[in-house]
Amino acid sequence: MSKIAVDLMGSDLGYSELSKAVIQFINEDKNSSFILFGEEDKIQPLFADVDSKRFKIVNTTEVIPMEIKPLDFLRANRSSMYQAIKAVKEGEADAVVSAGSTGGFVVGSTILLRNIDGVTRAGLCTPFPTAIKNRPCVILDVGASNVNTGEDIYGFARMGRIYAEDITEIHNPSVYTLSNGSEEGKGPQEVVDAYELMKTRKLTGFKGNCEAREALDGNHDVIVTSGYVGNIFLKATEGTAGMMNGMIKKAFKRNIFSKIGYLFAKKGIKDMKETLDYRRFGGAILLGINGVAVKAHGNSNTYAF
Amino acid sequence: MSKIAVDLMGSDLGYSELSKAVIQFINEDKNSSFILFGEEDKIQPLFADVDSKRFKIVNTTEVIPMEIKPLDFLRANRSSMYQAIKAVKEGEADAVVSAGSTGGFVVGSTILLRNIDGVTRAGLCTPFPTAIKNRPCVILDVGASNVNTGEDIYGFARMGRIYAEDITEIHNPSVYTLSNGSEEGKGPQEVVDAYELMKTRKLTGFKGNCEAREALDGNHDVIVTSGYVGNIFLKATEGTAGMMNGMIKKAFKRNIFSKIGYLFAKKGIKDMKETLDYRRFGGAILLGINGVAVKAHGNSNTYAF
Repeated sequence: MSKIAVDLMGSDLGYSELSKAVIQFINEDKNSSFILFGEEDKIQPLFADVDSKRFKIVNTTEVIPMEIKPLDFLRANRSSMYQAIKAVKEGEADAVVSAGSTGGFVVGSTILLRNIDGVTRAGLCTPFPTAIKNRPCVILDVGASNVNTGEDIYGFARMGRIYAEDITEIHNPSVYTLSNGSEEGKGPQEVVDAYELMKTRKLTGFKGNCEAREALDGNHDVIVTSGYVGNIFLKATEGTAGMMNGMIKKAFKRNIFSKIGYLFAKKGIKDMKETLDYRRFGGAILLGINGVAVKAHGNSNTYAF
Repeated sequence: MSKIAVDLMGSDLGYSELSKAVIQFINEDKNSSFILFGEEDKIQPLFADVDSKRFKIVNTTEVIPMEIKPLDFLRANRSSMYQAIKAVKEGEADAVVSAGSTGGFVVGSTILLRNIDGVTRAGLCTPFPTAIKNRPCVILDVGASNVNTGEDIYGFARMGRIYAEDITEIHNPSVYTLSNGSEEGKGPQEVVDAYELMKTRKLTGFKGNCEAREALDGNHDVIVTSGYVGNIFLKATEGTAGMMNGMIKKAFKRNIFSKIGYLFAKKGIKDMKETLDYRRFGGAILLGINGVAVKAHGNSNTYAF
């Protein structure tokens, strides 16, 4: 039975939204139990009907703010996030999940759980939906760091490959560096350096640079980039998909005819939405540390969380 | 009458695609004439039916390759791109347009036409379609540089504001720095520096950081960023929009019912496609140099060019 530490505080939608997710998970998965970190008097009533053997609440009153400096995180050792990560460090839990501050979560996981030997920088990794159904593209780093070296990005490639093979179950995944052109030598120094390292160290599956335009065509299994750029890519993609979904909805709601049109085209449109459903990949896993640490979007709803 | 220098070579689709665009423009706009740079014996036949007062062909045999170093560009002074830019420098043309190498075009325009006094770095600027029809968002730099300083980005903001007011005709445009969070202090050093400069120098319209997710919601008029990141944003957006358009098409082509559905919803879908039509903004203008220099996508078709 796996035990999951959950930081219920610090998300945009509040602890009750996240609690609903935990309860749903408990009901659907019989092989898990939870340690929940947050304000006990508020959380307890939400779990009134849940089997008490499946969860434990650890009362915490402090919440890590969205922006926090590493030293301040260490001082906030009574906070829900600190305590949740510490549960993994001390072997009380097998994994930790939080929808709170990304900066705090990365700092806390790195300091408390430490990088795996040989990893220069941990990276937040998330599978993206692509044009091909059930063929996600694994991208990292999407925001653990702002700036990365070529060596960091090379490390992301090694970790991303393993993730793609073991988690998204893609056999012999192809690996690309994200750049502003497909030719070797394109991009800022860290990308040029990473490319060079992949080549000289003969990283299995490395195919060269990939432009952002082709990234999600379903033919790119692992894409590596520095954290700031990965974050911009992630949000540009989500933003555009969200905007277009809104427009499609509007297009169908135009008048009685378009509404009839929707009824006819419903299946295809639903299928498309499913293929592109970013909520299916609600979290990013922090690869490269000694422990399983998953960072959910700050605005995760129950389904995503 | 305005005179436009056109580099007909170096595009992905070839000189005949671009020539068609020039001929169409000549037919639709009576107040312009062209100086065309390229292989005369190939181009001349395409213009057989065009009024010879409206265009002149300058024979060039050399083509700037996609990747070129600054010194090599200067040596390639017989190339179509070099000659086209030089026509602006020497006052023979009012503007230059090319669909060739971006690197070559930026280097050539910067060296031959030189930056305007006070501009630390020229920036490629392009209006993006947003969720609100006819309310484009002006973004720069989208790829003239890889790396920029805060001072460069501050300069982009000044130029972007003027572009938004005068060209996309947005009164009192709002200006944002692209970052991975909306709070001050988010992002890599150059973004933090740019934010600081905008604040201390009181840039009119500056509203702070903007996340990539909200960039195209129609409420952000000017967004500034370093060139590499802007390029990733541009291509991520285009890639996602293109992918979804393909999926919408597929959804409607599914079967006879979905095809009927399309007939009913056609108007709304077309309206959406028009709102999002990236081809309407086929080029990026290089802001900050002494001259009008427009870089079209390498894969521009007739309509875009």
